[in-house]
Amino acid sequence: MAAAFDVQAFVKDLRTRKDYVDACLRKYMPAEIAYPPVIHQAMHYALFNGGKRLRPMLVLEGAQIAGGSTASVERTACALEFIHTYSLVHDDLPAMDDDDYRRGQLTCHKVFGEANAILTGDALLTAAFGLIADNAGVDDIEARNVALVIKLVAKAAGSQGMIGGQVLDLEAEHKSIDFEQLKVLQRLKTAELFRAALLAGAMLHNLPGPGVAALEQYAEKFGLVFQITDDILDVEGDFTVLGKPVGSDVRNDKNTYPSLFGLDTAKKMAQENAGACIEALNVFGPEADFLRGLAFYVVSRKS
Amino acid sequence: MAAAFDVQAFVKDLRTRKDYVDACLRKYMPAEIAYPPVIHQAMHYALFNGGKRLRPMLVLEGAQIAGGSTASVERTACALEFIHTYSLVHDDLPAMDDDDYRRGQLTCHKVFGEANAILTGDALLTAAFGLIADNAGVDDIEARNVALVIKLVAKAAGSQGMIGGQVLDLEAEHKSIDFEQLKVLQRLKTAELFRAALLAGAMLHNLPGPGVAALEQYAEKFGLVFQITDDILDVEGDFTVLGKPVGSDVRNDKNTYPSLFGLDTAKKMAQENAGACIEALNVFGPEADFLRGLAFYVVSRKS
Repeated sequence: MAAAFDVQAFVKDLRTRKDYVDACLRKYMPAEIAYPPVIHQAMHYALFNGGKRLRPMLVLEGAQIAGGSTASVERTACALEFIHTYSLVHDDLPAMDDDDYRRGQLTCHKVFGEANAILTGDALLTAAFGLIADNAGVDDIEARNVALVIKLVAKAAGSQGMIGGQVLDLEAEHKSIDFEQLKVLQRLKTAELFRAALLAGAMLHNLPGPGVAALEQYAEKFGLVFQITDDILDVEGDFTVLGKPVGSDVRNDKNTYPSLFGLDTAKKMAQENAGACIEALNVFGPEADFLRGLAFYVVSRKS
Repeated sequence: MAAAFDVQAFVKDLRTRKDYVDACLRKYMPAEIAYPPVIHQAMHYALFNGGKRLRPMLVLEGAQIAGGSTASVERTACALEFIHTYSLVHDDLPAMDDDDYRRGQLTCHKVFGEANAILTGDALLTAAFGLIADNAGVDDIEARNVALVIKLVAKAAGSQGMIGGQVLDLEAEHKSIDFEQLKVLQRLKTAELFRAALLAGAMLHNLPGPGVAALEQYAEKFGLVFQITDDILDVEGDFTVLGKPVGSDVRNDKNTYPSLFGLDTAKKMAQENAGACIEALNVFGPEADFLRGLAFYVVSRKS
């Protein structure tokens, strides 16, 4: 793995996995024509918007590393994407980041109105937990593990996880925060849900402790790489590739890795953390090659 | 029971139960000083606001009717109140009903700002599912039943339940809907969560099918009674008792029982449905007396 990373082959693999996740999402979403139609149309609109599907992929990969099938954890994989999507819909609202575009398309509230966008986020979040619960009994998955995963995900997505991170992010606008504060903010806002996704799949298939610890280590560093590259793309990304306007962090006076350390150091930090991701996987053999590739890939991403 | 309903004794019982639920909520909430503080303060503010705690009472009662202890389902009881509270916080937002007061106090977004109010609702909803999951293993409660209850609650609170009802309610403003549409709207918006609450406690303690069917019947009629009296109070309630301005339905041109049938018929309908509540409980003995009293009580409520 360390020797030759075949980017083209990896991108092809990533596309196959994304298509699989998209097919799962179509399978486990309430139908677009379900009553009342407007909320289900809005849920579909928000969900099928060219997302990278990284969190579901991590769920599926965690299950495979623990020796389980991807089919057995499809519901939980979709649930993590529901949660990610709800957070984007609410973050984009006028009262929050007030964004008109997301991945090159109008944001949910621009199309369906603000009230429906709030309710769409609520509905995706609610459906997510129903879906994880529905994973009990699929392919011998134990209800006990499902309950543990729901606790894990609720914590990662909650007031002391992702939502807490968003609260800190809103507080930090237009004021300087130091590096320690930025790290906490970004761990909560981004890394916690990546961590929950990867662990969820593994826990549903009873991965033993040392493996879980290695995945936790990977997920933490992966979250950092993802966030730093996100900050970098906001400085030097391309609107047509990225699908959203660049420069919004500077306009909103946000604290980012480039704003704190400069662009070159930020890039070096992303590389270092990607290296730490790979290192964390040393307890695994080739079964963790996708996660290794993902760290390489994210550090060099253009969108 | 049918002979003499002692209102005073019932009100005293209700107060004892409310105090018990409030103590549970304090126990299972993240501490107000948890980091970041503002979101936890806002969650406390929204939650400790003089609510009647009917949904948690129904969870506790469902468990008792099934032969379980109230202590064993405290977490699930609190979760239902979290969900009810989140729905109020989001319903009050400027983009939704735009209400400044709730139970005589400023609404969450008036105190903490709109962004924090959205996040507060999200956090309560997220925490609710974590809490139900945490009920697994308490007093021999099976994880399998917990998973079923999470599915039940997610459905009742979701896009085809409470959220769907709110979508229909927003759509129905300033236009006439017929009685059938009003019934669907109100079943989704109000009755589904009452039903989930009562069944949740019963299901956690394996109540057999006929009992479950009776509770479902009760809950459906109870939701109706509650909604009709809510509509009536908006016409002839007292601000100082009710804690919110009256007449908002007329101002917002909402379809209500009084607007469709007139006040007298609406009152008669509330009485009839309360009677149907009592009748549904015929399969039970004195263990269902609290539910019988609750139907009598709600039909005559002043707030």
